[in-house]
Amino acid sequence: MSQRPIAAIILAAGKGTRMKSDLHKVLHPVGGRPMLLGLLDEMASIELRRVVVVVGAGADSVRQAAGRSGVVFAHQTEQHGTAHAALQARDALQDFAGDVLVCFGDVPLLKAATVARMQDRLNAKDAPACVVLGFRPSDPKAYGRVIADEGGQIRKMVEYKDATEAERACDLCNAGPLMARGEELFDLLSRISNDNAQGEYYLPDVVTVAAGGGRAAAVVEAPETEVAGVNDRRDLAAAEALWQAEQRERVMLAGVTLRDPGSVFFSYDTEIEADVLVEPNVVFGPGVRIERGSTIRAFSHIEGAHVGPSCEVGPYARLRPGARMEAGAKVGNFVEMKKAVLGAGAKANHLTYLGDADVGAGANIGAGTITCNYDGFFKYRTLIGDGAFIGSNSALVAPVKIGDGAIVGAGSVVTKDVDVGALVVARGRQEVRSDWARRFRETQTAKKQAAGKD
Amino acid sequence: MSQRPIAAIILAAGKGTRMKSDLHKVLHPVGGRPMLLGLLDEMASIELRRVVVVVGAGADSVRQAAGRSGVVFAHQTEQHGTAHAALQARDALQDFAGDVLVCFGDVPLLKAATVARMQDRLNAKDAPACVVLGFRPSDPKAYGRVIADEGGQIRKMVEYKDATEAERACDLCNAGPLMARGEELFDLLSRISNDNAQGEYYLPDVVTVAAGGGRAAAVVEAPETEVAGVNDRRDLAAAEALWQAEQRERVMLAGVTLRDPGSVFFSYDTEIEADVLVEPNVVFGPGVRIERGSTIRAFSHIEGAHVGPSCEVGPYARLRPGARMEAGAKVGNFVEMKKAVLGAGAKANHLTYLGDADVGAGANIGAGTITCNYDGFFKYRTLIGDGAFIGSNSALVAPVKIGDGAIVGAGSVVTKDVDVGALVVARGRQEVRSDWARRFRETQTAKKQAAGKD
Amino acid sequence: MSQRPIAAIILAAGKGTRMKSDLHKVLHPVGGRPMLLGLLDEMASIELRRVVVVVGAGADSVRQAAGRSGVVFAHQTEQHGTAHAALQARDALQDFAGDVLVCFGDVPLLKAATVARMQDRLNAKDAPACVVLGFRPSDPKAYGRVIADEGGQIRKMVEYKDATEAERACDLCNAGPLMARGEELFDLLSRISNDNAQGEYYLPDVVTVAAGGGRAAAVVEAPETEVAGVNDRRDLAAAEALWQAEQRERVMLAGVTLRDPGSVFFSYDTEIEADVLVEPNVVFGPGVRIERGSTIRAFSHIEGAHVGPSCEVGPYARLRPGARMEAGAKVGNFVEMKKAVLGAGAKANHLTYLGDADVGAGANIGAGTITCNYDGFFKYRTLIGDGAFIGSNSALVAPVKIGDGAIVGAGSVVTKDVDVGALVVARGRQEVRSDWARRFRETQTAKKQAAGKD
Repeated sequence: MSQRPIAAIILAAGKGTRMKSDLHKVLHPVGGRPMLLGLLDEMASIELRRVVVVVGAGADSVRQAAGRSGVVFAHQTEQHGTAHAALQARDALQDFAGDVLVCFGDVPLLKAATVARMQDRLNAKDAPACVVLGFRPSDPKAYGRVIADEGGQIRKMVEYKDATEAERACDLCNAGPLMARGEELFDLLSRISNDNAQGEYYLPDVVTVAAGGGRAAAVVEAPETEVAGVNDRRDLAAAEALWQAEQRERVMLAGVTLRDPGSVFFSYDTEIEADVLVEPNVVFGPGVRIERGSTIRAFSHIEGAHVGPSCEVGPYARLRPGARMEAGAKVGNFVEMKKAVLGAGAKANHLTYLGDADVGAGANIGAGTITCNYDGFFKYRTLIGDGAFIGSNSALVAPVKIGDGAIVGAGSVVTKDVDVGALVVARGRQEVRSDWARRFRETQTAKKQAAGKD
Repeated sequence: MSQRPIAAIILAAGKGTRMKSDLHKVLHPVGGRPMLLGLLDEMASIELRRVVVVVGAGADSVRQAAGRSGVVFAHQTEQHGTAHAALQARDALQDFAGDVLVCFGDVPLLKAATVARMQDRLNAKDAPACVVLGFRPSDPKAYGRVIADEGGQIRKMVEYKDATEAERACDLCNAGPLMARGEELFDLLSRISNDNAQGEYYLPDVVTVAAGGGRAAAVVEAPETEVAGVNDRRDLAAAEALWQAEQRERVMLAGVTLRDPGSVFFSYDTEIEADVLVEPNVVFGPGVRIERGSTIRAFSHIEGAHVGPSCEVGPYARLRPGARMEAGAKVGNFVEMKKAVLGAGAKANHLTYLGDADVGAGANIGAGTITCNYDGFFKYRTLIGDGAFIGSNSALVAPVKIGDGAIVGAGSVVTKDVDVGALVVARGRQEVRSDWARRFRETQTAKKQAAGKD
Repeated sequence: MSQRPIAAIILAAGKGTRMKSDLHKVLHPVGGRPMLLGLLDEMASIELRRVVVVVGAGADSVRQAAGRSGVVFAHQTEQHGTAHAALQARDALQDFAGDVLVCFGDVPLLKAATVARMQDRLNAKDAPACVVLGFRPSDPKAYGRVIADEGGQIRKMVEYKDATEAERACDLCNAGPLMARGEELFDLLSRISNDNAQGEYYLPDVVTVAAGGGRAAAVVEAPETEVAGVNDRRDLAAAEALWQAEQRERVMLAGVTLRDPGSVFFSYDTEIEADVLVEPNVVFGPGVRIERGSTIRAFSHIEGAHVGPSCEVGPYARLRPGARMEAGAKVGNFVEMKKAVLGAGAKANHLTYLGDADVGAGANIGAGTITCNYDGFFKYRTLIGDGAFIGSNSALVAPVKIGDGAIVGAGSVVTKDVDVGALVVARGRQEVRSDWARRFRETQTAKKQAAGKD
């Protein structure tokens, strides 16, 4: 691989009108992360020395979202085409001695390895003036064609409408991204003309300009899936689907069983070890780690959570940020955890809310248990000791501490700390009125009849 | 578009044996609505002056379901083929001066725009005797072929089994629906012969009869997706899938994000505004409206509900008929609402049932809250004031009113009204028995060992 | 069909390294059952007289899982190829006078009917020495080709790498399974040479050996879907998808509505009658039977349960092993049943746990009801009489019995039996502190401000 440094110009000035959104197009998420940030993260492995994001409409929100070390912004006040947009990065890169990628904030699946191949080609012996990224679409529609020889030297780039039948029969199309030397790029860009129907400056004309100067251009190919652009919400869904398909394949090859891969959704940072079994219909939000041998049952929704080894989660478990399950713990149906730890082998099997809680190893949390963690102003923690047994339908009013091995009687509302090994019961006394129900039924039935109901 | 009025004959007399159902085939739902009604609703835009539904087997249930203004029924006592069925509408349309569509109750996805194109063709200068609907199936199987010239004039209609190789190579097939002038249709139909192996009168023979009288027929094409017929449950699922795909595309183009379009299910009347985000696995039943900027999280099930702007719903929220969320309200996991209003900014985040309830703006409904709205005979309402705080695991026994800003202590069973700004606590007192749990464990462990269990 | 008995050698000695699993490859489930057992169950209809499973790596777990009447094991200590593996079955089958199928534990979808066709071909007039199973893959990749005449007589079997262009153009490929007479098979196998690059003994070389002895081989074709092999988790997911697709088709043709077939998951023994409606996203674990006219709503998870006729289940219902719903019973959202019976017409509509319970006909279980069935050591039953009414948010502490027609007041914790027709209330008394909430809000607001929070 080339030793020359790389910078990137990311075009993100377009309005994205067809998204019909108040949110800037490049901030719509793919894989749980704004697509522009996904692109930046992907390029981490090739160490971009500088990134210039060219902004225009909705610039503020893009600056705010993408502001990170190494990223600067250039503002395109008026929109005169992609070459004009790329030219806005000139000031930010004027002293940059390296290779410059021009890519698009709304082409979110471009791979670092592909950019590396583009750079290798740029620095190959024949030293083209620029490298264009090409692809072979399953349906070439009206894409511009790249007419190249076998070595990838471009003979001609031609818009579909200007192409001959023979040229149209060539299925290698221009994907958009392009790379050139920093020392040459802006000179090439500045010589592009807007002598066309729209009066715009088009980035692919870099090739024409280079040819005019006796310099060749080359093409590198990428799979179609990598260069899918996002212009409307259908495209966004399609990009998400491609991204998810890649994750599913990756985790399956790493030894994870996905019983129905298409119904499992990952986020950009999901970590999941071998011999984890994931049933159908599971959503992993950001910040999830699942250790070896655990089972994630159907209809589970997990974000910001760490599931230790050999745990069982779900069906219908919701783990929210700060949830942590230690080895062999079990969370069952209709259970929510948030900022809560479930100790090794502990169980919360049914209809429970564990918020701001520490549950000790081997504890058993009965059905319908609620940690009352909020008073409308502050949140408080509930501490449950090792081996404690919380009877069903109990409310634990935090801050409260249940000692190791203590038992809470079913239906209790516990407001004060409970000692190690103690039993606590906090519920009403049972009162019975014989025959009351029978008489009530008679009365209500009569009322209902009187009301003209059946 | 033609100014002549349109009537429709909808054939719905078939038994639908392959559905293996007690429910009549045309009453099986597509998009949450019996397919026959979906067809009628779709045609509303072309203002059918009269609709004659030809019924036979299971006539009563069809009459009951489809009885609406402008719809009459004709009964086909014995089934002698599609032309015979269409003839049953003669009495109902004998004085009708306009164009008559003959279509099928089990071809539910036919579009009004297509019927309009059929009518335009019928009334074009060459004035064909009838217009047949054609389609080009991806797999032409053994469909009857329509051999037509470039202007759509039919030269020949031929059954697959009688077709030459050249005719079979033509992929334009007969879809079934057909249009003719009311003044001519029944005369054409009555001249069809049943001189064939099955001894039945076939609708496509209208073309042959017309040709015998020196009159031409024409063909209009529709996409295959529009003419899919339903004969068994696979077909029903396929029709549903096509219908859903169309809705998904429509809402995405209107600015709604569907993270996984294929797992979101719409009903015929779902209204959903731009910048709504819908996570995977969401079901919209009938009667739903979602306003701008709201998020519908995964595994939500929503029917008969109105979600205001900027609300958050789910994951695992169930909104049932009569649920209404005002601006910025939030319904979280394992929460059910029915005939209940959640005021602006109010929250019900976990494990709650709100039935027959009015919750004021900014109120907070704790985890595990249940409105006890039913006594086995009548339903009663619960009123919760603005800014009230309902502690977790409370039961509110309706009819009951919690005043503005009041607080209900966790685990309370509230049976009487609570004043504005008051605190109410209704729970048992906490009693502790030290060391009881430790001794209980010893006893039970001994019992378990004695019982031969581990 | 041939009268000769059939035996099978199932090769299951491979390590399955690419599964990256602690579980042996052939024990990974398809359709809720280890794939090896699925293969054995499928073959029940052709009555395999003997089954020899050839084991190697992980032999113990395979022996344990597949140990059943008629199944013996042969151990392949060192792995020298598929022919060598099959030879290990020689001792177990040395006296077997019948036809022997050699198949693969990781090709789980092979059909008994296909094996029967193989046997018929083996015993046809031309009496081939063996019958090879062939298939025509959509993408023939580098599979070995089977060059055969129209009658299925094999002229040549050729590895892709050794094939001519003409041979490669033939799309009939070797699927792996093979059948020969027990009297001949081991002789053929023992004459196979390992004179090849890998030094292994290859099963398909049976054909070459037979030809060397002047004996022909024949090919029988199976659809590609039936011969899919499992080598990694992607393959496992693909096999599961094929299996599920077949079940979905089967139940739809039997009169079950699957609104979205692709999101409904069956197990190997799911029984489901006509006119059952299954909404999207439903998982059927093993041991489920659903009777006619019931509706299984979205997001339901059902295993080991029996749902009687005309019941309504879900959305979000979880039926666990031992759940039984009688005619017309209803289980609603966020309700779990385990070892529990819901009598005819009884309802548990919301947020309920019914474990180890018998609920009588017509009883109404209010929202938030919990049966407290476990004391940490033993499980106890709750008995609820016919027509009883359990008020919302109640806890029933088992063992306990609620009499016919009794009423439990909302929010009660019932610990003692309740008589027929009685009312029981067991909750705290309501205490009110006027203006307390208002003052609390002032205090907390001040605290929050002091803490520097908004």
